[in-house]
Amino acid sequence: MATDKPQRIVMKFGGTSMAGTERIRRVAGLVRAQAAGKGGARNEVAVVVSAMAGETDRLINFCREANPLHDPAEYDVVVASGEQVTSGLLALTLQSLGERARSWLGWQIPVRTVQSHAKARVEAIEAPEMLETLKQGEIAVIPGFQGVSQDGRVTTMGRGGSDTSAVAVAAAIGADRCDIYTDVDGVYTTDPRIVAKARKLKAVTYEEMLELASVGAKVLQTRSVSLAMKAGVRLQVLSSFVEDSANASADDLLGTLIVSEEEMDQMVEKGLMERQLVTGIAHDKTEAKVILTRVPDKPGAVAHIFEPLADASINVDMIIQNVGRDKGETDVTFTVPQADLARAQALLEDRRDLIGFNRIITDSQIAKISVVGVGMKSHAGVASTMFRALSDRGINIQAISTSEIKVSVLIDEDETELAVRVLHTAYGLDAVE
Amino acid sequence: MATDKPQRIVMKFGGTSMAGTERIRRVAGLVRAQAAGKGGARNEVAVVVSAMAGETDRLINFCREANPLHDPAEYDVVVASGEQVTSGLLALTLQSLGERARSWLGWQIPVRTVQSHAKARVEAIEAPEMLETLKQGEIAVIPGFQGVSQDGRVTTMGRGGSDTSAVAVAAAIGADRCDIYTDVDGVYTTDPRIVAKARKLKAVTYEEMLELASVGAKVLQTRSVSLAMKAGVRLQVLSSFVEDSANASADDLLGTLIVSEEEMDQMVEKGLMERQLVTGIAHDKTEAKVILTRVPDKPGAVAHIFEPLADASINVDMIIQNVGRDKGETDVTFTVPQADLARAQALLEDRRDLIGFNRIITDSQIAKISVVGVGMKSHAGVASTMFRALSDRGINIQAISTSEIKVSVLIDEDETELAVRVLHTAYGLDAVE
Repeated sequence: MATDKPQRIVMKFGGTSMAGTERIRRVAGLVRAQAAGKGGARNEVAVVVSAMAGETDRLINFCREANPLHDPAEYDVVVASGEQVTSGLLALTLQSLGERARSWLGWQIPVRTVQSHAKARVEAIEAPEMLETLKQGEIAVIPGFQGVSQDGRVTTMGRGGSDTSAVAVAAAIGADRCDIYTDVDGVYTTDPRIVAKARKLKAVTYEEMLELASVGAKVLQTRSVSLAMKAGVRLQVLSSFVEDSANASADDLLGTLIVSEEEMDQMVEKGLMERQLVTGIAHDKTEAKVILTRVPDKPGAVAHIFEPLADASINVDMIIQNVGRDKGETDVTFTVPQADLARAQALLEDRRDLIGFNRIITDSQIAKISVVGVGMKSHAGVASTMFRALSDRGINIQAISTSEIKVSVLIDEDETELAVRVLHTAYGLDAVE
Repeated sequence: MATDKPQRIVMKFGGTSMAGTERIRRVAGLVRAQAAGKGGARNEVAVVVSAMAGETDRLINFCREANPLHDPAEYDVVVASGEQVTSGLLALTLQSLGERARSWLGWQIPVRTVQSHAKARVEAIEAPEMLETLKQGEIAVIPGFQGVSQDGRVTTMGRGGSDTSAVAVAAAIGADRCDIYTDVDGVYTTDPRIVAKARKLKAVTYEEMLELASVGAKVLQTRSVSLAMKAGVRLQVLSSFVEDSANASADDLLGTLIVSEEEMDQMVEKGLMERQLVTGIAHDKTEAKVILTRVPDKPGAVAHIFEPLADASINVDMIIQNVGRDKGETDVTFTVPQADLARAQALLEDRRDLIGFNRIITDSQIAKISVVGVGMKSHAGVASTMFRALSDRGINIQAISTSEIKVSVLIDEDETELAVRVLHTAYGLDAVE
């Protein structure tokens, strides 16, 4: 939101943006522009950084060589060093541009996490000292992905944890906004590689972003969006690949805002946004379909199917129970990640007698297409528009599932791009030339 | 010292020993052998490690690229990461061999340093928690070279600071011995590349080691030996390149002990060592000679020469004042590091009028040869043996300086190897075949 009041902003840069001192210099340019603010009012800026692209993999590889069954506590000591390096280097680069800046390691802030090494979660951040330096105009540079456990050991948050770190820091210091810099310049109505007329959205709600992420639009980590929603942190997705970052101004730094439904309503009322029925169309080709035929239609049968999958951490997405051919029997259809299909199949075969199914039919050649939008909460007809549009182009729907702000269908994988284009047009999302 | 009682031992490994996971596995084998002890009595072991060879240079280079005038506090954040990685990896490798082990970063122990970034000095180490784990049989792995300042920032101790870290840790935990693993297997009577009959010494005193180090036998950092002497830490220099480290035993780990004069006397009394008049012959080709002619022979003149050099951190070694040709005038000869010669010359030229000398004569083609030994405290004739032996071979002595346990001479650089061999024989140091 463009204002002339000073703001407190968290900026987060991923590994691609931090890959080498030259790219770090570009990042420093963007940070300086954000700190300079607009209309003479300097912003307070904290920056959360990832390790250089490739570095975390290099360090993980060392750990594997040292000990294939590595102790997660020592693994964390090794891999956390990658972000330590980039945070020091960004502080140095900002200083070379004349800014005051310092790094704050996880244990220095401190970023307290629950003690689950390699996949820690932020428990609390109390940063009175860091906040004081921000207020005095010093830029804070924070290694993402790392924290400290209650017993004073280094922890890390699992791959991609830097987004979540950034949101947690933003919540802790009461930031006006948390900007996540990526290799795309915002959230689009759909994948621009499929639909040339896809439009960048000014804003989406947390719920929409979560639904879009869960169906394949991997701009942000799902966990970071959930945390932002819970903590009321306004997010922005934007690109770190701005031309001439050395001369960037705050105006150049505009991406897609991710906000609460209330703020979205206010933006619409103020005329900053148009109300949309559907915000975006997402697709996901990574799932596989499983059909168990002739499952006894009695209490507990379905539990016998899904409990072992849950125990094996296999993430079941859509579940549809069809009426079976014979009385007292039913077909159960569901989707699992393709990567887990073989494992799921083996687990179910082991329990064939217990579950009492007839056949397992699997299909990896499917895609899930979803239309997402908070607007559909108050408008009927979104689903029927979808079915009509697909049917008009002869696209067969294999299964349907819905949530409050999403309608998903399974279709043949070969028809993915066609379906996305058809729906993008059907909901009036195409950009006007 | 071989005993069957359990001992508390600090082991220190440099960058060459830690260069890659395969070498770290060799180190882990040596650590396991030391922990296993002898006669069924396990030792308590803490290990201090350097970064992988080349890694610190890589990190320093990043800092230079980011900011040529780098902030030492941020420089420390970046370069300290190298030891963090190797300490985690060694802990992981020890675990893979079935040992209990964990890493202890500088801020975790904590290793408190005075706040002079990039060249910090250890102020205090209080390690009650680490000591408890040692007593319970867990191996502690400690990144060398790093500490934490009073205000909670990462500090580093300058290149080679890991030796000093190791000694400081040994002093803090009351270790029976601090073993410094290097690429040589001990301290020799002289450089074995010059004298094939050089012998490995069983033991030398701290004072001898300091004199040997100061004249070019760079086995250990001078600072680490001074600290060991001050804190009464028994040192041992030995090689990390033991054949088949996986099957090493404590008996294989024998190098040169560096101990107090009292302990040396006891070793001699017990017949473990032979009393030597001269312990070693050292040479140093890195100095340059400066002669200022016809300096006025009056109070304050010499101060005018050496004060500006001290202010410029130019380390003046030998100083000899000769009688001048004319009454009331004198020639002053001294040595400075060759690398500082041009700077020293310029500083002196600037003060020509103040000092009142006639000419500056410089010579870089010189070598300093030193004979070192605590034995010469109580025996006369060591110096005259030296002068006689050199003179017999026609080697001209350009200058002489002596300390309590050292006699040094300046000679023509081309005669270095000849002089070392002649003296090695003259003092009866040649190994008996």
